Amino acid sequence: MANTRKKISVIGGGFTGATTAFIAGQKELGDVVLVDIPDMEDPTKGKALDMLEASPVQGFDAKITGTANYKDTADSDIVVITAGIARKPGMSRDDLVNTNAKIMKSVTQEIVKYSPDCTIIVLTNPVDAMTYTVLKASGFPKNRVIGQSGILDTARFCTFVAEELNLSVKDIRGFVLGGHGDDMVPLIRYSNAGGIPLDKLISKERLDAIVERTRKGGGEIVALLGNGSAYYAPAASLVEMVEAILKDQRRVLPAIAYLEGEYGYDGICLGVPTILGGKGLEEIVELELTEEEKADLDQSAESVRNVMNVLA
Amino acid sequence: MANTRKKISVIGGGFTGATTAFIAGQKELGDVVLVDIPDMEDPTKGKALDMLEASPVQGFDAKITGTANYKDTADSDIVVITAGIARKPGMSRDDLVNTNAKIMKSVTQEIVKYSPDCTIIVLTNPVDAMTYTVLKASGFPKNRVIGQSGILDTARFCTFVAEELNLSVKDIRGFVLGGHGDDMVPLIRYSNAGGIPLDKLISKERLDAIVERTRKGGGEIVALLGNGSAYYAPAASLVEMVEAILKDQRRVLPAIAYLEGEYGYDGICLGVPTILGGKGLEEIVELELTEEEKADLDQSAESVRNVMNVLA
Amino acid sequence: MANTRKKISVIGGGFTGATTAFIAGQKELGDVVLVDIPDMEDPTKGKALDMLEASPVQGFDAKITGTANYKDTADSDIVVITAGIARKPGMSRDDLVNTNAKIMKSVTQEIVKYSPDCTIIVLTNPVDAMTYTVLKASGFPKNRVIGQSGILDTARFCTFVAEELNLSVKDIRGFVLGGHGDDMVPLIRYSNAGGIPLDKLISKERLDAIVERTRKGGGEIVALLGNGSAYYAPAASLVEMVEAILKDQRRVLPAIAYLEGEYGYDGICLGVPTILGGKGLEEIVELELTEEEKADLDQSAESVRNVMNVLA
Amino acid sequence: MANTRKKISVIGGGFTGATTAFIAGQKELGDVVLVDIPDMEDPTKGKALDMLEASPVQGFDAKITGTANYKDTADSDIVVITAGIARKPGMSRDDLVNTNAKIMKSVTQEIVKYSPDCTIIVLTNPVDAMTYTVLKASGFPKNRVIGQSGILDTARFCTFVAEELNLSVKDIRGFVLGGHGDDMVPLIRYSNAGGIPLDKLISKERLDAIVERTRKGGGEIVALLGNGSAYYAPAASLVEMVEAILKDQRRVLPAIAYLEGEYGYDGICLGVPTILGGKGLEEIVELELTEEEKADLDQSAESVRNVMNVLA
Repeated sequence: MANTRKKISVIGGGFTGATTAFIAGQKELGDVVLVDIPDMEDPTKGKALDMLEASPVQGFDAKITGTANYKDTADSDIVVITAGIARKPGMSRDDLVNTNAKIMKSVTQEIVKYSPDCTIIVLTNPVDAMTYTVLKASGFPKNRVIGQSGILDTARFCTFVAEELNLSVKDIRGFVLGGHGDDMVPLIRYSNAGGIPLDKLISKERLDAIVERTRKGGGEIVALLGNGSAYYAPAASLVEMVEAILKDQRRVLPAIAYLEGEYGYDGICLGVPTILGGKGLEEIVELELTEEEKADLDQSAESVRNVMNVLA
Repeated sequence: MANTRKKISVIGGGFTGATTAFIAGQKELGDVVLVDIPDMEDPTKGKALDMLEASPVQGFDAKITGTANYKDTADSDIVVITAGIARKPGMSRDDLVNTNAKIMKSVTQEIVKYSPDCTIIVLTNPVDAMTYTVLKASGFPKNRVIGQSGILDTARFCTFVAEELNLSVKDIRGFVLGGHGDDMVPLIRYSNAGGIPLDKLISKERLDAIVERTRKGGGEIVALLGNGSAYYAPAASLVEMVEAILKDQRRVLPAIAYLEGEYGYDGICLGVPTILGGKGLEEIVELELTEEEKADLDQSAESVRNVMNVLA
Repeated sequence: MANTRKKISVIGGGFTGATTAFIAGQKELGDVVLVDIPDMEDPTKGKALDMLEASPVQGFDAKITGTANYKDTADSDIVVITAGIARKPGMSRDDLVNTNAKIMKSVTQEIVKYSPDCTIIVLTNPVDAMTYTVLKASGFPKNRVIGQSGILDTARFCTFVAEELNLSVKDIRGFVLGGHGDDMVPLIRYSNAGGIPLDKLISKERLDAIVERTRKGGGEIVALLGNGSAYYAPAASLVEMVEAILKDQRRVLPAIAYLEGEYGYDGICLGVPTILGGKGLEEIVELELTEEEKADLDQSAESVRNVMNVLA
Repeated sequence: MANTRKKISVIGGGFTGATTAFIAGQKELGDVVLVDIPDMEDPTKGKALDMLEASPVQGFDAKITGTANYKDTADSDIVVITAGIARKPGMSRDDLVNTNAKIMKSVTQEIVKYSPDCTIIVLTNPVDAMTYTVLKASGFPKNRVIGQSGILDTARFCTFVAEELNLSVKDIRGFVLGGHGDDMVPLIRYSNAGGIPLDKLISKERLDAIVERTRKGGGEIVALLGNGSAYYAPAASLVEMVEAILKDQRRVLPAIAYLEGEYGYDGICLGVPTILGGKGLEEIVELELTEEEKADLDQSAESVRNVMNVLA
């Protein structure tokens, strides 16, 4: 029984996909295949080669390759989906949803064909609905299709708190439920600095401002960049999930899961606290919520349902 | 005597500069200031913020900020210059040289004004001549102005060798003298896999092909990307130099140094084996060359002089 | 202004001191000088050399040396004290206290003589009283003499919680106040798994058992080893403090601080939440305690005072 | 197909075994089972627990457990043997050989019973003969029984060279063939600093002295420690092999392999350059030797045969 290298495929060779490939390579989580459409095959190969050429300098051992052929993703342990379009001026939300849903279906078909046993992690927006789309298109059990949003939202929250308190990010913990971005439900009472609840360290006004900034965190980057959206923090968040699963770590991380009654919702994908391990999404952790938190979460779920209705 | 954080400024917020900032942050080498022109201030701030938001996920502690104001670079320990334009269709080489030389002079003036004790590392092409320009513009002693080319060229060579032999990049060593890219002088006899000389493992034909591919390594990426040039491997190479200097490691690394008689050249900057440590470029290692190697190196030096003549 | 290597001296070349040196070296925090008494000079040199010989394999760059001469510790940035005797059968507690206090005084004199600007971290037991002894003997301001106990107690607590819940240790946070071991005051309400308060995940009975096991955590290892006490986790805890200070991270970590009114105590050293950064112990974080927690902390403080009375 | 954690068993809970377990844990190579005899069960459990308690501080996720029951090693991917006695005053070499051979046989039987598909790495001295003993006792194919000596000998050589040249160990490469220690055959012409052959940097006298010191490297540590032998560098060397195999890296590393004609020897285990990857010892690299090197290697082989004769 030979020891074999793990294999990670990343669908979508844009900045987020490429950065995900690079960080996964740096961490030696496995070999990485970066996939894009035929028109982008050469640039994707170029990025992959450039990353590979960084490996002798940084001393990591990971084969990173670019391709437009899904055959090259065969037998992946994990597939990360970053493909999809961003909303353009003049495009309706429904058009965005339907275009990306179409992409999800086509991409999922290819993934499943070549890696029937893999776990899929979805990043494409609107991520709750796209996770649902991929789950259905894949025919996979719900533990093997997971969406990313909460790690990123939490990371932004922690960044702002660390800055506010002039403390190391190493010691700040945040906690976020619900939809990505605007629909985020931060649980301040579960957030802390070195264990100390944040409301003992930061005034309510400042905390509210930080929460608000976190909700708009994606937009803040978009506005600054002028052209494009965040990719470093999203990529780092994806790799955290990949690592938890490939190394079977049973980590407690927020993730988008398919709910069947948990938190009172059924048949939707929503951001909840989960246990990520070797089997993918191993458990959903159910917490008691305050009335206010539950109301916020209901609104998040409502937003997701609205998007899902567009899908029909 | 308090312990203070190191400070690294990266001039040029394009892909190479940004990736350099990110990797330096990941390695906790110090706080990083990413600098670009006023027109690019917001995108630069956006990239920096996105990287900072990755830090809680990856667990690294480094403040990464974007700016268009050189005041923010004050008291840097190291400054890396990636600014400059790429050659565009229809642009003569002389125009490229003179444009970038002008940028180097203006950038250097600002660097020196705010960080008179820093060490400067230059990446901008044509890098040998630009290193010379920065050295002269800075008025710094020669140990504090260094150019990067050899680590990158070597990394590409090692990548291709590892692929050829199906071995880990961890065990491949290459050795390169002279100018960047086409003018590279690889010393095959100093290159090995786990200590074993490459000519015992690879046929001369294949080795020649690998050397040729290495020489054109930058162009290979440019051709694949279609729009833009390599940045992952260049950034990793820059960070390797930054780390060697900030941590005073006295590493044996190829770098572009100002020569005063070494290897028979005087008054030019050229890629040679060096010792990089706390004082910057601490030593130039002089090797005996074969006649063929010396002839190749002469040609490299000639190319550098030709570019330098344009500067006048 | 050349970049120089940081210098860490570790007093006491036993298992804890040696493991501290090794981990600090692995992390490239600086060069390490391991110091023991003249009788132990050769074994100390042997351990240091053995560690140094591990560095080419692991790829870390840190000079690790052994010595019996305090002159070799000159200009250390940080000095860690692990020296001292363990309580032997038949030895009274007072004898232990007075013997180790004498060692602390003599060791501190040497440290201060050669590194008047360093920060000192104390591990020797009884650590609260020994931190006080070193503080007084050094004449240093209180921010530059710190004791370790809380990181270790917390780490044990987290280990047991991770095991209980079958979750990754990466996501478990604990929180401990007061004296080391038996006198530990765990703040369960500030402890969590991925942000989720532990009392929502573990029954009160099991939590009580885990707290009790944590209090006796040092003794559990002593009983198992039969001969000697824990050194891996104590060393890792010391290095965490060293890193926070050398890299000026402003981390929120429990540490033994000299109190001047904080928490209602004056003139004693006790474990409290602190901010560790470039200036050493930069702040003490004062929390509101419940009556029960305050009563427990009073008892901790009382124990420390009892030991301090022995010192007179 | 769930992702599962790798499993590493380390036989022998002494300093080397324990340090091997710790470093493997730090690198998250898998869960680690540390095994010793029933009399040492508690101390072994104590060491393992102490290491585990370091994991929340260092942030690594690896279950480390101690046991005296081989059942707990079931389904290991790799088993490392460090068990055995050291030569005591008055003990003949033959007694040492036969005692350790007996231990190897009994230990191997247990390993094979519970992990029939594992790869075994042997460290016990005299390591060439013990590797042979384990190979025969296991009935395993030769790619799955490997001995460690060359990585350690090389690491010592590199340490001394780095010190001699005042350069970072990161850039020094050594190359060693043949038996461990006294019988070591260093190939100076394949050793370099940053690619530069050592004989261009160090005088013949100093190089000879360094080679001689390397040969006696184990003894130097033994003499300094007074009681016991090296364990940090041996453990790091073992983990390097474990990592190369578990991550299927195809690294070029010196290792003790069973020879069937290579280098002109048949039926003995000897240190040679190898490729270590997922299948264990994937290849033996055969080099042309100078007459002098071949004569030295013959002597090494002769020594191994002499020990093997004792085994009969």
